[in-house]
Amino acid sequence: MALDHPTIAIIGSGAVGGYYGSRLAQAGHDVHFLLRGDYEVVRRHGWMIHSCEGDFSLTPDQFHAYNNPTQLPPADLVLVTLKATANDLLGPLISPILKPDTVVLTLQNGLGNEEYLADLFGPGRILGGLAFVCINRGQPGHIHHTDHGLIAIGEYKGPPTPRLRRLADIFNSSRIRCRMLNNLRYGRWEKLLWNIPFNGLGAAMDLTTDRLLASPAGIDLVRDIMKEVLAAARADGADLDPGLIEQKIDHTRTMQAYRTSMQIDRQAGRPMELDAIFGQPLRSAASHHVPMPLVQSIARLLFTLDNGKSSPD
Amino acid sequence: MALDHPTIAIIGSGAVGGYYGSRLAQAGHDVHFLLRGDYEVVRRHGWMIHSCEGDFSLTPDQFHAYNNPTQLPPADLVLVTLKATANDLLGPLISPILKPDTVVLTLQNGLGNEEYLADLFGPGRILGGLAFVCINRGQPGHIHHTDHGLIAIGEYKGPPTPRLRRLADIFNSSRIRCRMLNNLRYGRWEKLLWNIPFNGLGAAMDLTTDRLLASPAGIDLVRDIMKEVLAAARADGADLDPGLIEQKIDHTRTMQAYRTSMQIDRQAGRPMELDAIFGQPLRSAASHHVPMPLVQSIARLLFTLDNGKSSPD
Repeated sequence: MALDHPTIAIIGSGAVGGYYGSRLAQAGHDVHFLLRGDYEVVRRHGWMIHSCEGDFSLTPDQFHAYNNPTQLPPADLVLVTLKATANDLLGPLISPILKPDTVVLTLQNGLGNEEYLADLFGPGRILGGLAFVCINRGQPGHIHHTDHGLIAIGEYKGPPTPRLRRLADIFNSSRIRCRMLNNLRYGRWEKLLWNIPFNGLGAAMDLTTDRLLASPAGIDLVRDIMKEVLAAARADGADLDPGLIEQKIDHTRTMQAYRTSMQIDRQAGRPMELDAIFGQPLRSAASHHVPMPLVQSIARLLFTLDNGKSSPD
Repeated sequence: MALDHPTIAIIGSGAVGGYYGSRLAQAGHDVHFLLRGDYEVVRRHGWMIHSCEGDFSLTPDQFHAYNNPTQLPPADLVLVTLKATANDLLGPLISPILKPDTVVLTLQNGLGNEEYLADLFGPGRILGGLAFVCINRGQPGHIHHTDHGLIAIGEYKGPPTPRLRRLADIFNSSRIRCRMLNNLRYGRWEKLLWNIPFNGLGAAMDLTTDRLLASPAGIDLVRDIMKEVLAAARADGADLDPGLIEQKIDHTRTMQAYRTSMQIDRQAGRPMELDAIFGQPLRSAASHHVPMPLVQSIARLLFTLDNGKSSPD
């Protein structure tokens, strides 16, 4: 099948796209990066990955780089690593490189991305994944990978298929630890269980994770936000283990003074992924008549910060 | 009566106590300041007030300064200007200087201070006031008065009395504009209508007032918080004019990039007046079965910041 020797397109070559794409190219796959700001530097000098698992670099002959989306070849696998705030670009960027059997895997945050892609390109080719990785861009062409790296992937609807297994093999043989999800929606809600309290409070209050957990009142608040997420997840068919609450809190303590992606976006004055991490989960909960008063309030603080670029429904 | 030539004690000589006490001393009143950090400097060099209404200074022979509360003389008027976070000191500080007819006027923020003083010293001697003033401490002995200055005073219970009128005369003849309140509780809620959204969001999000009003989402949020405060006030017998919401928002726009007192306290790592401005109003609303979901959520963020020094009920 097409995934035996796939042509891989990376749509959105920030930290996540640059890192995973470089791992795939390092393993010898045929990788095509669509770049914007870093295009000139990467095309000339390649990628430099500073990784906790060992640094490596890619020379320009080990991959293909483009800044014009119409120049990418038809792809067998499209990896979507653009920020969800830029989803309105996905139609024009991806349509030209689709073949009948092209598979589209989104590694974006939050809820709603698979649905959005399924509406655009049909549900049959859509897969979703969660990237559990601490990663940042450095100077152009440089990526800093500081911790973790696992991705968890699933079919948009239903249990693992042969193509999902093949994809997991591709990742695992490229030094990207990958596990398969029986239920992607469950995985999405499990990641939201962390993202909603920590990204949300971190950005709304401009506090690193250690500060959020520094007081009994803060821990109680995180816990109560997680309880709202659990209830919303359950109503949406993802019956998460309540024991995850204490696991996630304990795990977050080990991360020390971690700045979440939304806190970084706030400080940099960039748009935050509010719709994917707050808007969509709130709409899901509302559709099931599950109240989320804390999450709703924090979302309103965040939409205030985002300077009216978007708003909750 | 005793207020003809009153001995005035200022309990808590920060910015508010230092400013109003200095105005009274400047007018020739017999003023006794209880000081802590600034004691040595003020005792030796007096007060320097940098005021938008004209700078002035007081030499040490124009007032009395103490750092030992047992040395203050019995007072006819006690002005309480300590932060509400230090209320547990008020019993020991004030009891020794009370005479049978001593009047105690608290200019502290929020709800609950008159009740607290009434429990300690009997309700008959308690008055309350609201200071509408932009004021900050500079170096020791220096106070910066940047805007406004009005105080509004009222009897703890009931309409103005002769002693309240006398007190208003004392202030007005000391270049402190003073008006009398027919209903102190009404005045307290009117000030909370501003304090809860702006102090609350300003401290929780670490944003100046202009940033809170920079987006339609932010203005809607402030407005909805104020609606919760209006409903709680009404249930508590203070039927505020709903038109105040737009008045307060318009007025706040004229203040530009204003850092609220709680935002300043957050940045300085000092305790915030959470119980007076959030805890007490929330308990009042709860006792009347008035929901305040936004205010409750913001209070929980603030109690997180206060590092467990206190907690909401």
